[in-house]
Amino acid sequence: MHSSAKSPILIALSLVLAPLVQAAPAQAPTMSQLLAGSSAADWRPLDPENTLYLELASGRVVIELAPAFAPLHVANIRALAHAGYFNGLAILRVQDDYVVQWGDADGTRALADGVEKVAAEFDAPIGAHDAFTRLPDGDVYAPLVGFSGDFPAARDPKIGRTWLVHCYAMVGVGRDDDTRSTGAELYAVIGHAPRHLDRNVALVGRIVKGIDELSSLPRGGEQMGFYSKTQATVPIRAIELAADVAPAERSNLEVLRTDSRLFLRVIESRRNRPEEWFKAEAGHIDVCNVPIPVREIPPAAAQSSP
Amino acid sequence: MHSSAKSPILIALSLVLAPLVQAAPAQAPTMSQLLAGSSAADWRPLDPENTLYLELASGRVVIELAPAFAPLHVANIRALAHAGYFNGLAILRVQDDYVVQWGDADGTRALADGVEKVAAEFDAPIGAHDAFTRLPDGDVYAPLVGFSGDFPAARDPKIGRTWLVHCYAMVGVGRDDDTRSTGAELYAVIGHAPRHLDRNVALVGRIVKGIDELSSLPRGGEQMGFYSKTQATVPIRAIELAADVAPAERSNLEVLRTDSRLFLRVIESRRNRPEEWFKAEAGHIDVCNVPIPVREIPPAAAQSSP
Repeated sequence: MHSSAKSPILIALSLVLAPLVQAAPAQAPTMSQLLAGSSAADWRPLDPENTLYLELASGRVVIELAPAFAPLHVANIRALAHAGYFNGLAILRVQDDYVVQWGDADGTRALADGVEKVAAEFDAPIGAHDAFTRLPDGDVYAPLVGFSGDFPAARDPKIGRTWLVHCYAMVGVGRDDDTRSTGAELYAVIGHAPRHLDRNVALVGRIVKGIDELSSLPRGGEQMGFYSKTQATVPIRAIELAADVAPAERSNLEVLRTDSRLFLRVIESRRNRPEEWFKAEAGHIDVCNVPIPVREIPPAAAQSSP
Repeated sequence: MHSSAKSPILIALSLVLAPLVQAAPAQAPTMSQLLAGSSAADWRPLDPENTLYLELASGRVVIELAPAFAPLHVANIRALAHAGYFNGLAILRVQDDYVVQWGDADGTRALADGVEKVAAEFDAPIGAHDAFTRLPDGDVYAPLVGFSGDFPAARDPKIGRTWLVHCYAMVGVGRDDDTRSTGAELYAVIGHAPRHLDRNVALVGRIVKGIDELSSLPRGGEQMGFYSKTQATVPIRAIELAADVAPAERSNLEVLRTDSRLFLRVIESRRNRPEEWFKAEAGHIDVCNVPIPVREIPPAAAQSSP
C-alpha cells in the first residue's frame, strides 16, 4: 500500500536531500506506457483464415478463431461462414452477466456441405500446446492458468490436458445435452467469467474488437435471456471469414504476443497498478482480469506485413 | 465428471435389476429446486431505510445499501437521496466490462445539508462483522472470502480487516486521487469482477434488481467510457430512499440469508451443477460466481411482514 500524503518531516528531508539525489525511483510504467513503447515484434497480425467478422447494423464484431484448441469446430465454422450460412440469422439470446448467443432459432436452415456434428473439443492434449505463459497468481478453478496462442488457457499436468477458459469475450459453441456439436450456434461471454462452463463446451475463439456491440444489446425477456416474440430482433447481416473479404474492407488488427517479455510487464502493470489513484496493491491478478491487448494498424502497414 | 451415455450392458443390467431397486440415487437438487423448497425464514426483507431506487426511463434499479461496511458514506447517500440531490442528473460513463457511473458531471450542484467528504471506508475491523459464511474454495485476491450481511466479502485475519468485494452488481463511491469522498458519485460493476479495486474504494451496496437497465446501456465513446457530447444522455429521473416512497410504490424484495443452511446448499448446486447438460464438474466456485438470490413477493405479503 502506498499513500500520496507526505509528512512535513519527509517533505523537509526531501528538500534537504534534493541536490544530492539525482531522481526519485522511477514509477513503474502503466500498461498504456508499456504499449506505447512496444516494438513491432511484440505484436502478431491476425490470420485472415482464422478471423471472423460478425456484422450487425451497429457495427462489426471481430472474432479470432482458435483452431489449435478446437480444429474440428473451427473447420465447420469456417465452412459455414464461407457458405454464408449465418447471414440473415439473428441474435437469439442475451442473458445478463452471462452470454449472447446466435444461430438458427428454428434449426431448419441447411448447414454447409460437409458440416455435421463433430466430437467434443472441451480440452486437448498438452503436447500440442507447448507454448504456455503461466500466470503464477493461482486460480480457483484449474491447477494452472496462463496464456496459450494468445488466448487465456488452463492446464492440468496430472492428466496432460489443456483448455481455453471462459473469460469475458470468449466465444464458444452452443450444444444440447449431446456433447457433440456443429458450430452453427455460437455464444460470447458478456459477464463475470462463467468458469463452470470450462471443459463443458468447445471454446473456439475470442472477440478481439467490438464486443460492446453485443454486450450492450437489450437483455432477453424469456428464461435464459431468450428474446421474446414481442422484442425487436437483432439481425446478423453476415458472418464472414476475413479471408473472404476484400483486403481494403478488412479490420487490420494485431494482438500482443503473450509469449513476449512485454506481456509479462503488462501483467505486472495490471497486478499492481502504478497509477497514483490506487492506494492498495492487489498483489495478485485473476487470469480473466489480464487484458490481451489488441491494436488497430493503418491498412498500408497491414498490407506490407509479411 | 459424469456422462449421459450408458453402455448396452449397463442398460441390460438395469432392466434386470429394475424390480429390485426402488429408485436411482436422487439427483442433487438445482438452485431453482432449492429455492422452490425454501421457507420464509430463509429470506430477509429489504430494510426501506437501506434501499435506494434509481429510476431511469427504462425502469427501476434497486440498490441495497451496506451501512455495516460504509456507515459514513451510506449516511451521506441517504441524505443526498432524501434531499433529491440525484434527481435530474445523468449517467456519466459506461465502460464495457467495467463500470457504469453516475453523478454531477459539472460538480456544481450543491450537496445536501451536512454532506461533505468523509474518511475512506475501504475496509473495516472484523470485530464489527462476526457473521461470515466462509467460502472454502479459495480466492486469487484475498486470504478469505465469503458472505457477510448477505454481501460478498473478504477478510484478512492477520490484520483483522474485512471488506466488500467488487463482484458484478456491486455499487461503489467514485473518488479522485483523494481517498476521501462524499458518495455523490456512484458506480456499479457491469463486467468481470474488477477485484483490483477492492480496498481502493468504498463499496456501499449491491444492485439486487434491475442491473440490466445499466449493463445494457450504450458504451461511452470517450476515454474510460465517458459519454461524448454527441451521445444521447441517459437521465436519472430520481434516486429515492425506499423509506421516502409510498409503501404501495415500493419493490417488495427479499434476499436469501447467506447465513442459512439453504444458502450452503445453493453454493453446492452452483459449484457442481447437477443439471444433465453439465459433463465436467467444476469442483470449485469463485466468490463472484455465487448468486445471492433475490425474490419479489406480493405486496400483501410484504406488508404483513414484521
